[in-house]
Parts: sequence; C-alpha cells; structure tokens
Amino acid sequence: MKKAVFILVAMIALSAFSPVQQKQKIIFFGDSITQAGVQPKGYITRFGQMLEQKGLKDKYELIGAGIGGNKIYDLYLRMEDDVLAKNPDIVVIWVGVNDVWHKQSSGTGTDADKFQKFYTAVIKKLQAKNIKVFLCTPACIGERTDFSNQQDGDLNLYSNFIRTLAANNNCTLIDLKKFFLAYNLANNKDNKESGILTTDRVHLNETGNEMVAQEMMKVIIK
Amino acid sequence: MKKAVFILVAMIALSAFSPVQQKQKIIFFGDSITQAGVQPKGYITRFGQMLEQKGLKDKYELIGAGIGGNKIYDLYLRMEDDVLAKNPDIVVIWVGVNDVWHKQSSGTGTDADKFQKFYTAVIKKLQAKNIKVFLCTPACIGERTDFSNQQDGDLNLYSNFIRTLAANNNCTLIDLKKFFLAYNLANNKDNKESGILTTDRVHLNETGNEMVAQEMMKVIIK
Amino acid sequence: MKKAVFILVAMIALSAFSPVQQKQKIIFFGDSITQAGVQPKGYITRFGQMLEQKGLKDKYELIGAGIGGNKIYDLYLRMEDDVLAKNPDIVVIWVGVNDVWHKQSSGTGTDADKFQKFYTAVIKKLQAKNIKVFLCTPACIGERTDFSNQQDGDLNLYSNFIRTLAANNNCTLIDLKKFFLAYNLANNKDNKESGILTTDRVHLNETGNEMVAQEMMKVIIK
Amino acid sequence: MKKAVFILVAMIALSAFSPVQQKQKIIFFGDSITQAGVQPKGYITRFGQMLEQKGLKDKYELIGAGIGGNKIYDLYLRMEDDVLAKNPDIVVIWVGVNDVWHKQSSGTGTDADKFQKFYTAVIKKLQAKNIKVFLCTPACIGERTDFSNQQDGDLNLYSNFIRTLAANNNCTLIDLKKFFLAYNLANNKDNKESGILTTDRVHLNETGNEMVAQEMMKVIIK
Repeated sequence: MKKAVFILVAMIALSAFSPVQQKQKIIFFGDSITQAGVQPKGYITRFGQMLEQKGLKDKYELIGAGIGGNKIYDLYLRMEDDVLAKNPDIVVIWVGVNDVWHKQSSGTGTDADKFQKFYTAVIKKLQAKNIKVFLCTPACIGERTDFSNQQDGDLNLYSNFIRTLAANNNCTLIDLKKFFLAYNLANNKDNKESGILTTDRVHLNETGNEMVAQEMMKVIIK
Repeated sequence: MKKAVFILVAMIALSAFSPVQQKQKIIFFGDSITQAGVQPKGYITRFGQMLEQKGLKDKYELIGAGIGGNKIYDLYLRMEDDVLAKNPDIVVIWVGVNDVWHKQSSGTGTDADKFQKFYTAVIKKLQAKNIKVFLCTPACIGERTDFSNQQDGDLNLYSNFIRTLAANNNCTLIDLKKFFLAYNLANNKDNKESGILTTDRVHLNETGNEMVAQEMMKVIIK
Repeated sequence: MKKAVFILVAMIALSAFSPVQQKQKIIFFGDSITQAGVQPKGYITRFGQMLEQKGLKDKYELIGAGIGGNKIYDLYLRMEDDVLAKNPDIVVIWVGVNDVWHKQSSGTGTDADKFQKFYTAVIKKLQAKNIKVFLCTPACIGERTDFSNQQDGDLNLYSNFIRTLAANNNCTLIDLKKFFLAYNLANNKDNKESGILTTDRVHLNETGNEMVAQEMMKVIIK
Repeated sequence: MKKAVFILVAMIALSAFSPVQQKQKIIFFGDSITQAGVQPKGYITRFGQMLEQKGLKDKYELIGAGIGGNKIYDLYLRMEDDVLAKNPDIVVIWVGVNDVWHKQSSGTGTDADKFQKFYTAVIKKLQAKNIKVFLCTPACIGERTDFSNQQDGDLNLYSNFIRTLAANNNCTLIDLKKFFLAYNLANNKDNKESGILTTDRVHLNETGNEMVAQEMMKVIIK
C-alpha cells in the first residue's frame, strides 16, 4: 500500500516534471524588431501559434530577448544575463540594422571588422554551452527594390558578413534579407519605401511578422 | 573685279569671325574626378584626342573645371567665376559622390532635398544663358556588383534624383552609373571593389577614363 | 483759402504715407527657435509686447521667418521669397545650431568654410538692399557650464565665425552664446543640461525667450 | 662568523631572485598615441630614461601596447592576448580620442553608455587579477584654449566619465586633459590648434611626450 502510494506520487511527479525536461527553450535575441516580436501579432507570438497548430506547444518555450537600439556589442554585453543565465537550447540572433543605421543617425555605428569580431564572440560563447545558434540577416531598412534605400549598400555588406559567419561557424542561416527582397520584387511594384512587409521601413507589419515566423519555423522546427 | 573684291572681303570676314563663331566652348564642371580629367590620360584629355581624330579639333575648346571634394553647393557657389564668366556653349555637370560620401567621412554630406534644390538652381542659371547642359550620374563609390559597396543605396538614390532632374529640365543625361555597373557585371567576375574602371573605388583608371570620354562623345558631339 | 487747402492736402498725404514711411519692418530669420518665437510666449511676441510698453507699437512691424531644421544654406535658398520680397528694414539672423548638430544627427551638417561662404552671401544680398543686418550667435546645444555639452566645441567654433562675420561686414552682433553661458554660470549650479533657459537643451523656455527679447531690444531699438 | 655567512647567503639569494621578484611589469595600453610612445622620443621611452636616472631601471619592465585607431572596445577585445597573458603588475589605460573622433570621421564612434560599460569591464578584468590600474583622460583633439576645438564638448564629457570611473573603481587618475589645458593656457597665447604639446592636434611632440612621462612618473613611481 505504501509502495503503491509512492509509485503514484512518483508518476504524478514525473508527469509534472517531464514536460520541463523535454521542453526546448528558444531565445530570440535581437533589437527593437525582436522586442516587438512578443506583441499580439509579433513574429514570436505567431511562431508560438504555429507550434500550437502543429500540436507542438508543449515541446517548446519561447523567450523574446529584444531591446530597441541594440547593436552586436549590446548583445555581447548582455548575453550573460539575458541568454546564458536562462540555459536555452536554441538561440536565434537577429541583429545588424542599428550597426549600420547608427552610423548616420548618431555617428555610433559599428565598424565592419568589430561587427564580425563581436558577432564571432557571441557565437563562440553560445556554442561553448552546446546551444544551437541560428543567424538572421537584417531584413531591410527600406523596401525599395532598386537598391536605392539609403543604407542598402552597407546593409548588403553586413549581410554578407553574417552569411560568412554562419558558414564558418556551422550555424543555420535564416536569410531574411533575401526573402524580403524576393517578396518585394513580386509585390512592391511601385517601389515604395514601406508598407509591404514593414510599417516604417524597418519594423514588421502583420505580413512581415507572418513571413518571418514562417521562415524561422521552416528551419528551426523539423 | 568686283567679284574678287567680294571674295577677298568674305575671306577676311571668315578669318576674323569664323573661329569665334564655330568654336564651341565645353566646360566640364565637377569634383576631383573631373580635376583629374585634364591629366595626360584623363577623360577630358581623351575627349580632346577623340575630337582630333575626327578632325574636329578646331571646332571645340575644352575646359576642365573640377575641384576635389566639391559637392553640388560648391558648384553653385563658384559657378559665376568658374563657368558663367567664361561664356560656355555647353556645360557637363558631374557631381554627387561627395554629397553622399561626406555624410560618413565628415558628417557634412548634402541633404536629399537640398541636393535637388541646388542642382536645379545650377541648371536654371546655366539655361538662362542659353547654355546646353548635360548631367552625369555619379559613376560609383566601389565597383562591387552585388550592391554591397557601402554607399550604393544612397548613390543610387541621388542618381535617381539626377535622372529626374535631367528629364524635368530638358537636359541630356549621361548615365555613367548605369554604364559602370553594366561594364562591371561583364568584367568584374570577382566582385572586386576597385581596379576595373577605378583605381581606388572612385577615381578613374585608364579604362574608366576611356569609357567616360566615349560615352560623353556619343551624346555631346553629333 | 489756398493755404488751407494746401494744408488739408498735405495732411491727407501724410496720413496716407506716413505709416508706411515710419513703420520699420523687422524680419527674424532663422530655424525652429525662431519658428517658435511667434508663439504666445515666444521671443518675437515678447519683443512686440516690449515695444508696446514703450509706446512704440505703431513704429515697427515684426515678422517671424523661422523654419525648423534650417541651416545657413536653407536661409540662403529661401531668402528671396521669405525676406527680400517683403522689403524689410532690419533682418535679425539667428542660425547655426543645425549646421553643427546635423553633423551627428544625420551626417548633413555644414562644412566650416561653406558656413562662412553662405553666411557672407546672405549678408551681402541683404546689405545690397540697404537692409540693416543683426547677427546672433547660436545660444546653446545643452546648458552645462563646464563645456561638456557634446557640441560645445563646434558650436564655439561656429560662433567665432559669426563674431568675425559681424565685425568684417559691419553688422551688429547679438552674442546670445555669451549671454546664455554667463546666465548659466550664475544660475545653473548643478550643471544641468536643460531647464535653465531651454526646455530641451536647444529651444527656449519662458526665461530664455524673455532674455533673448531683452538682448535684442537693447541693440535693435534705440 | 655564522652571522656573516648567513648574510652572504642572503645576499646571493637576493641577487639571484630579486630581479624576478622585484621587477614590476608596467603595460601602457592604448591607441596610436601610445603606439608612438615607444619611439626614441616617445613618452614610454622617456619614462624608461627617467627610471634609469633614478637608478630604478632594473626594478621595472615597460611594455607598450598601443594600436592606432583603437577605441575602448578594441582594448576590451584584445586585452586577453595583449595584457592579461603578460601578467603585468600595473596597467596604464589611455583611450578615448577615437571613441569621440570616429563619430565624425567614420560614423563609428562609441555611444556614451557603451563607453562606460566596456571601460568598466576592462577595469574589472584587470583588477580581478590584482593588477593596479591607472586611468588617463584623453589629452586633447586640438590645443585651442577657448573650447573651440570641434570635439571639445564630447571629449570633456568622456573625460568626465573617466574621472568618475577612476573614483568608483579605486583607480588612480592621471588627468592629462587637465594638465594639457593648463599648459596651453600658460603657453598657447595665440590659441593655436597644434604645435604646443602636439604635432597634429592629437599626437605628442617632444614637449608633450616629456610632460606625459613626468605626470605618469609622479603617480606610478613613488
């Protein structure tokens, strides 16, 4: 009798704890775009709803770790507290817009070589903890398709850096820049600066959030 | 007898007036690229050699009016002394690289709206003197063909402004940006930053000077 | 009888022409600080109230010609329409904050040499119409008194340019920068960035507007 | 007799071990100014000569670790290899000019808050190894004494940060900015931009190197 009770208790305990053991923790690590990702129609929220539709809701825990204005070295400076301390299984890094944009808006953008050095340091620290790392290219600063958005050149350059970093460090690339351009080439016939996938050239509208969630789903959840 | 006198008088008249009447004065008005254009292998020198080959040497006078670092409002500030005072028939304006580049190199680039206003003012002042005006797009700051030269976005934007200015003001466009990109797409397979048409991403090498002289020849001399 | 008629005619003529002849037109020409100057507690409004207190209301007409974000070459570009077309007797120029500030906030500040060239051109055009010109130094971008406001160095440099321009062109200087610093040295013991004479480091609070109106009154109305 | 032998042995032991035990390793950690410090008349070389004059040559080992263009986060990125790996007793940090200057020269200066965060991280890592840390304020970008050097405001602000960092982290401050200004107020009567303590507004001439060596000597060697 006592034994039966013990077994019952143990089973309850297992059912209570096992989801915790199986639940994969995914941290989305980025800037204001990711900060907005946890809002009702944000891409992280949508990612969660997609998991639910697939019946995978209990298998994943999603954490948004985006802070407005962040550049790669901001991620580096806060990764201990905001990422490593939470023991994630997967980290999705999406950064770069401010590294480029701040060059003109405040004179404090990130040098090309330092961008790569800090980004490498972030990847190495995550991988040293056996965390699976996904890298995203910065989607856009402006949606014009003739490469006449003012930061297009620099943003393409930094996207190339990220593509190389992914290849060199065995990280899966989520090439949002490529997806956004392809979508705009098909859907932005008037060469508008915003309104197709973004509200303001940078931050995602509903279609943009949906697209990002779907592209991430394709490679993160298999 | 009367006829001989008439012919003599006519010949004197011709020798007196015809050189003045026929020699068209062309001023090349721009920045350091144009300043270098009068050097032995510069595009203005090459333009002159091409005229000579066509037997048109005596029909044109070529004047280089390029000053390093010039932006559109520098052209505006010195156009009285360096252009109008010389009574040209034709002015070829080639400017824009510094308007974009100085945003990052010194914080003193030219606002998009001010670029168009000063450019329009320059055109209007020239046309008010019945001067024929040709507008060039800025060829490049970097020769990479995947739009990852850091200023590509802004330079494309300002090139679009110039294309519109040419259309709106009945000026002939010499779309150097388009020609340079086409040439690089065919000849710069390694996506190099310089060495194809430029020595340093901006200033012309021999091939670049040759190409610019030819493109200008096509539309200026008919 | 004839004399009486003459006097009557003369009086009619006086009433018709004298207001026009006597009323001096003052245009305040500048940026957002001057744009705000016509608001209920703005410095131009206060200037008008001071005139009224002195019984001089009918002798002057005050016109605010400030536009937010203007730099010296914006003043140059719009001076025909906004100043010369109105035939002022006096023009008070107050510009410089954006020429310095935009270097960092958008990469489109004004080169030191171009600042002086355009400023000189504005003065010359006004003086050619016999307009009396007053020059103001830019009061401040930040009210700290230990010269640790980020633009202090550049703003002091451009203020020096304006002092020299006033001396070289026989314009009366209204050295707002000097007055603001003196006031802050006496009243800003905590070395605060704003709140003494400005609301936000640049735009005037009530005390600031009062001070500017008084300093202008001292030299413009004698 | 036994006592004499003991003393002799002790002397031998001292002569054998004392160089290793007593020789203090000082690393000068900074930018191009420090990189030039090891040249024949550089401040580190002069510091060594002063030690020799004091008969302290054998007590100290001096290492220059300056790299041109370095900002605070460059120091952070290379401190493991260039500083910690060498086990210094003392580190003199002199940085800040590029953090401010690059805002305008390349759009990649250091945000005020990030400057303090990375600087704090550098100090903490050094102190965790029981290294004594000295902090220098950036001497100058321009030697004018009326605070009209273009970066004066920002450089004063960042110097204030360093003063606070020294106070908060128990580091000795070497306030080069203060010393340079005092010297220029006494010796730069013509308000020149360079030539008093620098060759080019930033890098030290012979007098500048001498002064820096002396000020460092005062607080490091006692």
